[in-house]
Amino acid sequence: MASSEERVGKFLKRLLEQKSALEVVQSLSSPQPEHANRIPGGSSVSLSAINKRWDLLPHSEEGRRALLPEGAESELASYQNHIENCLGAVKIPVGIAGPLRVRGLFASGDYYVPLATTEAALVASYSRGAHVITEAGGCVSVVLNEGVSRTPGFAFHSLVSAGLFAVWCIERRDELRAIAAQTTEHGELANIGVAIEGNHVYLLLEFTTGDASGQNMVTIATQAVCDYIAENSPVKSEYSFVEANFSGDKKATVHSFATVRGKKVSAEVTLPKELVAHRLHTTAEHLERYWKMSAIGAIQSGSIGIQGHFANALAALYIACGQDPACVAESAVGVTRMELNQQGNLYVAVTLPSIMVGTVGGGTSLPTQRACLEILGMAGAGHARALAEVCGALALAGEISLTSAICSNEFARAHQKLARSRQAGQQADNG
Amino acid sequence: MASSEERVGKFLKRLLEQKSALEVVQSLSSPQPEHANRIPGGSSVSLSAINKRWDLLPHSEEGRRALLPEGAESELASYQNHIENCLGAVKIPVGIAGPLRVRGLFASGDYYVPLATTEAALVASYSRGAHVITEAGGCVSVVLNEGVSRTPGFAFHSLVSAGLFAVWCIERRDELRAIAAQTTEHGELANIGVAIEGNHVYLLLEFTTGDASGQNMVTIATQAVCDYIAENSPVKSEYSFVEANFSGDKKATVHSFATVRGKKVSAEVTLPKELVAHRLHTTAEHLERYWKMSAIGAIQSGSIGIQGHFANALAALYIACGQDPACVAESAVGVTRMELNQQGNLYVAVTLPSIMVGTVGGGTSLPTQRACLEILGMAGAGHARALAEVCGALALAGEISLTSAICSNEFARAHQKLARSRQAGQQADNG
Amino acid sequence: MASSEERVGKFLKRLLEQKSALEVVQSLSSPQPEHANRIPGGSSVSLSAINKRWDLLPHSEEGRRALLPEGAESELASYQNHIENCLGAVKIPVGIAGPLRVRGLFASGDYYVPLATTEAALVASYSRGAHVITEAGGCVSVVLNEGVSRTPGFAFHSLVSAGLFAVWCIERRDELRAIAAQTTEHGELANIGVAIEGNHVYLLLEFTTGDASGQNMVTIATQAVCDYIAENSPVKSEYSFVEANFSGDKKATVHSFATVRGKKVSAEVTLPKELVAHRLHTTAEHLERYWKMSAIGAIQSGSIGIQGHFANALAALYIACGQDPACVAESAVGVTRMELNQQGNLYVAVTLPSIMVGTVGGGTSLPTQRACLEILGMAGAGHARALAEVCGALALAGEISLTSAICSNEFARAHQKLARSRQAGQQADNG
Amino acid sequence: MASSEERVGKFLKRLLEQKSALEVVQSLSSPQPEHANRIPGGSSVSLSAINKRWDLLPHSEEGRRALLPEGAESELASYQNHIENCLGAVKIPVGIAGPLRVRGLFASGDYYVPLATTEAALVASYSRGAHVITEAGGCVSVVLNEGVSRTPGFAFHSLVSAGLFAVWCIERRDELRAIAAQTTEHGELANIGVAIEGNHVYLLLEFTTGDASGQNMVTIATQAVCDYIAENSPVKSEYSFVEANFSGDKKATVHSFATVRGKKVSAEVTLPKELVAHRLHTTAEHLERYWKMSAIGAIQSGSIGIQGHFANALAALYIACGQDPACVAESAVGVTRMELNQQGNLYVAVTLPSIMVGTVGGGTSLPTQRACLEILGMAGAGHARALAEVCGALALAGEISLTSAICSNEFARAHQKLARSRQAGQQADNG
Repeated sequence: MASSEERVGKFLKRLLEQKSALEVVQSLSSPQPEHANRIPGGSSVSLSAINKRWDLLPHSEEGRRALLPEGAESELASYQNHIENCLGAVKIPVGIAGPLRVRGLFASGDYYVPLATTEAALVASYSRGAHVITEAGGCVSVVLNEGVSRTPGFAFHSLVSAGLFAVWCIERRDELRAIAAQTTEHGELANIGVAIEGNHVYLLLEFTTGDASGQNMVTIATQAVCDYIAENSPVKSEYSFVEANFSGDKKATVHSFATVRGKKVSAEVTLPKELVAHRLHTTAEHLERYWKMSAIGAIQSGSIGIQGHFANALAALYIACGQDPACVAESAVGVTRMELNQQGNLYVAVTLPSIMVGTVGGGTSLPTQRACLEILGMAGAGHARALAEVCGALALAGEISLTSAICSNEFARAHQKLARSRQAGQQADNG
Repeated sequence: MASSEERVGKFLKRLLEQKSALEVVQSLSSPQPEHANRIPGGSSVSLSAINKRWDLLPHSEEGRRALLPEGAESELASYQNHIENCLGAVKIPVGIAGPLRVRGLFASGDYYVPLATTEAALVASYSRGAHVITEAGGCVSVVLNEGVSRTPGFAFHSLVSAGLFAVWCIERRDELRAIAAQTTEHGELANIGVAIEGNHVYLLLEFTTGDASGQNMVTIATQAVCDYIAENSPVKSEYSFVEANFSGDKKATVHSFATVRGKKVSAEVTLPKELVAHRLHTTAEHLERYWKMSAIGAIQSGSIGIQGHFANALAALYIACGQDPACVAESAVGVTRMELNQQGNLYVAVTLPSIMVGTVGGGTSLPTQRACLEILGMAGAGHARALAEVCGALALAGEISLTSAICSNEFARAHQKLARSRQAGQQADNG
Repeated sequence: MASSEERVGKFLKRLLEQKSALEVVQSLSSPQPEHANRIPGGSSVSLSAINKRWDLLPHSEEGRRALLPEGAESELASYQNHIENCLGAVKIPVGIAGPLRVRGLFASGDYYVPLATTEAALVASYSRGAHVITEAGGCVSVVLNEGVSRTPGFAFHSLVSAGLFAVWCIERRDELRAIAAQTTEHGELANIGVAIEGNHVYLLLEFTTGDASGQNMVTIATQAVCDYIAENSPVKSEYSFVEANFSGDKKATVHSFATVRGKKVSAEVTLPKELVAHRLHTTAEHLERYWKMSAIGAIQSGSIGIQGHFANALAALYIACGQDPACVAESAVGVTRMELNQQGNLYVAVTLPSIMVGTVGGGTSLPTQRACLEILGMAGAGHARALAEVCGALALAGEISLTSAICSNEFARAHQKLARSRQAGQQADNG
Repeated sequence: MASSEERVGKFLKRLLEQKSALEVVQSLSSPQPEHANRIPGGSSVSLSAINKRWDLLPHSEEGRRALLPEGAESELASYQNHIENCLGAVKIPVGIAGPLRVRGLFASGDYYVPLATTEAALVASYSRGAHVITEAGGCVSVVLNEGVSRTPGFAFHSLVSAGLFAVWCIERRDELRAIAAQTTEHGELANIGVAIEGNHVYLLLEFTTGDASGQNMVTIATQAVCDYIAENSPVKSEYSFVEANFSGDKKATVHSFATVRGKKVSAEVTLPKELVAHRLHTTAEHLERYWKMSAIGAIQSGSIGIQGHFANALAALYIACGQDPACVAESAVGVTRMELNQQGNLYVAVTLPSIMVGTVGGGTSLPTQRACLEILGMAGAGHARALAEVCGALALAGEISLTSAICSNEFARAHQKLARSRQAGQQADNG
């Protein structure tokens, strides 16, 4: 988090031109009004509770109506158990990208993928990539592994105790599995890893989670395992925590990248050189050399893996389909590879080891989110792996489209055009 | 991306119990239907275009009505230039967390922060953290630096040419700045970095972006700079790209973590030990030792920085307030630190070097998103830095609440309760 | 690899003040003398071969005598099969650090550890740390895991072929183990990991290596495995490589840090607060808070793990004891943790997951290196794990001594004193 | 640091077959002999002091003679101020790799590079690579940047104080430079970076260091800067440390990789395809595709940068030439890139941002080390940058030779041959 003296200097100078250092200090330490209103109504989604909250807040009537339109009651009921201190709902426009032809172990066919975003050109870009993949005969996209971790931590008096505790846990792994199994019918404790650091032990409990994304399921199962350990282990910990931050939950980590978090998917397609020229306005050769330069760019920036913008695909699909968009932090990691083959065509592959998706639980049962899953034919149990394979295929489409835009010099121009069209729109509005 | 033999074995065995290897191969290589329908209507958001798209898709009438309710026309108009292949909109419930007392250079007062999420307990958890901060007198949260990069790449015949090119760029930095300035009134080319790798040169162009998040602004400015270079540099590149993936756009990188991407914010609060006991049901000592164990856990997982779940705060606020949620990938990086002070109270600080927010542009002008910004008093120009300071304060609230829940053994129990209450709900629905 | 414009500017300006850009280009492209002498004699270590080489080189008679003293013949013979194009030998002074009391699974007793270095104060610093550990009753140091990887890579036409190949390898794992076993009596193929990335497969073959460091052993075994695969796999690779750079050989990687490379060792000691004050001239509290600040410093720098200077211990011991000093690159990675316990004493632990040592093979049989192993009682077979435990204990001693020097303000002063004493020495030489 | 249950299980099972858990615990907690001898004589290198030390140690007469041969007195004198608790010296065989034709800004000509190693085939491999480079007309190798950091840390009561302190330091940067300048004639405080994390401030002081590697120089200068700050800053720190572990000293970090530590060097060569076939027994195409697969392998392993074995070159040259071999930890980081050009020839570049070398100070004045520098024509002041350029060229030679050996299937075979020749040697010895 270093900044060169000049940079900090410029930023601070600009600030201090506006306020003196003294004023800055005062604003930072000025006493605040004593009283601040608590938010009423807790997890209630009744209109009256919601209206009480609005009355507390600065707002325009227009804004209130936007978040809470007339006749929202039935909709609000569906939010029960999904939100607290509810005010209403934001709306995110949804577009579809496709057709995206996928040949997977679980997904198969031509998909039109719903994407929720407010960023112009995003859906169009993915749609272009999807279309090119489909014209090339479709992509292969397969789930290669799956698992979600919780990583409780245990502190002991000494390294010796830590070691004995680890041995005990490993010896009792069948019991630990049975305990976990009592908490859920859908998941299974698939693997137990152990990391000893001095007198600390981290258990890496890796679960399968059925058709749910599974964070809550694994938390509950892990708590049960920890309770069993606390009661039964002959080596008692000084203290312990149900999660000690080794699991990669809600963050990009090399560990998840190098193993799996959620579903690991790899997808590939070979684009004929004529298709590249015709549809993408560049050449297979140029795409390959862009890939090389951008790979080294990513490496120099200290990214985990090398890829362009997996995050765009995942955020838009996660929001549309009721997934947890905070998981974009852990999911937007992986490898994109582009390679000329002997025939001069372009082989493209993406590998995403941390796709966190489910088709039950989370936001998947909300009306609009369920509607998006229905468009994919993936609402309800039995579709989580297929959804992951679509995520992989979509990421592939996005990498193809983005890199082509950069190679054909259309990347900036698309933004310029949009900027102009917006200005025109504003002038029209004003005019 | 390694998996132990046993893991892969288990996963593959399970798969192959269902299908034989041959069947797998066939399903992956089976020919697909020749024809796939193109999506009609492009960027039009007219009802007729939207209806044509729906007619193409598998869907239930209920789903269609959910995404596209009666009387949506006026709303749809606002999506123009924000989406392509539009079908309607998903709704994400919004709750508020607060009061969150912030003393910043730009933000000041008690905030009620709108958060859009479908994850139960999330808003309640942030609200609890916010409330504790406020009871402790509020937090300090300050923008420390700002800048958004684009990183064009240039390939040369040789290292010598690359070096001469780099020298030329540095010598012409004032011209390059002037060129960039012609493309925008809001941003400025603040710094030019150079990275030479063999015969490749990466320019690190870092911009201020005013009150916009700024990705498009910097892309357009960078294109202008590249055009100027192409025309004027005496050392001609073999080829070049407007972005060579060194910028940290849409991904977690050590480079952004160690410098800045968007806004860098640090926020701190000292929690009296009595408040910790009373409101958070644990002790300052226990929180500090949790911090230590979780810090080492994060380090072992190979994360960038150490923190718990910045992503939850940022995803929920970004979605509510019209920010780009794909930026969660780059923003959910930083440092959380907890430390007992001499008096036995708990000092907590968070530092987020990559907050990507704006109060103009992106989705900020859409009706529901604008309504959320209004609740913060931050709609329109002049508020981007204040919004970043609120992000920092919110992340601080979340880290306090999450770690407390883990320390007080409430983390799993909260999930259990929710799971039960959902089952009850479903039984009620079915019964 | 970015440098701010000002930095590059300064450096280039300074260069270009001395030479013009044109001169620079000329010097870089100037034609060179056509002929360059080949080095005669290959791997011979006979005096006549060595003398022919010297005759080729610019040198002073004094320098030649230093590297090749009178009567070196018998010594030279021992270098056979350890060096090519031999000229003689450099001498690295050896000092001992100790007594270092170790309680391990394999090492036990008071050790005097031979360290080869030319850096003043290094041995003294380790010796101080060792002494404090011993006064505290000794440290516990235990081997927690072991394994050395080779990671061959295989390229296929498609992801489907890659997957089928991976399945075949896993199914044949017993055969692969048997093949590996035919190449060595000392090592064993302990685990087979698989990583699929598009149409590429990496096998992670992890071996135990007995009392050898084992890089050559695992290379030979891996070649045999690859040969067997090439002959027997029904899925043929387009091409393959015996090592595809996933193994962490000769470099710091998160993968090795998060698993093991060589031996993983953890060592701990609790230092009574009085001992800290008396011997280390600081306090347990101050050491703990230094640890916290330095941990966050390391995290911000993007290091793998957090530690101070494991490299100093390992380089000096590796050189003295005939280990491969290039392995410092992979071994100098891990975690140091310091924590005040309830009694106000200081708990210190180090964990090094990548110690690459052996007591047979490599340079261990050379006369001076063997002498150093004898001082430890560890020459020859049966001592590799004990040597690793001593490495862990030594690293612990070094972390204690270094951090104490920083906390007591002796760090810079030690260097100042040395600088002065050297100047005095030079003046005496000249006077 | 996770290990799968099976791995840990196997390792522990094996251990516990030999000892019971109880025995293990006993061995780890068994009381030790009370008394341990202190090492006599401190930093004296007199024969009598050395002999007293030997008398304390277990050793064979042969081992003592090896480390301390007859007539070593004059040599021992040269170790004064380089070692403590001296016993004598280890000998590392030295071979030369070359001719290596280098066209640099500072190095120019055909070099024979002295390498100290006990690893068979290492010198031969580098020599092969050097020779191929020379046949291709030599490589270009240039220093692109230089700087060595110290990073003191300062703790404050609050973020506000931290910010004010940072502002004060930046405003006084000229004074801080002047203070640093008083401590050395050779180095200069070139840049001051600032990183604020909550109430902690890290200063990143980056120095040029003339012809010395410079770690001690920058430590002394930083202490002076810290003393000045302590005396003069109106914002007083609670406590501070002269080094807070952000500097990358003795460890691989992304920060050093992304900026510079010591010297940053890039080197390149283009190898004609015929030369690749003739000398390296593979093809340019095959080398390029190996590069791609190994790059992705390295990325998956979580390495910093992508390269093969820079560590081998650097360790061997550092030891031969009196450099600090512990710096291999930080220096063995960077990028190797291989690319087919339009003519089908192979472009190869290496970039090493953290070469830590000097031609004065450290071990450079010891007789054998100085002799090695003389062979390069680089003994004494004025040669540090040239030495860095040779390091870059040598690393380039090594990458070419290693990857070629892997591509031509000679990698394992070379080791097999060596293993056989050693066995033959042993049988001859025994026979």
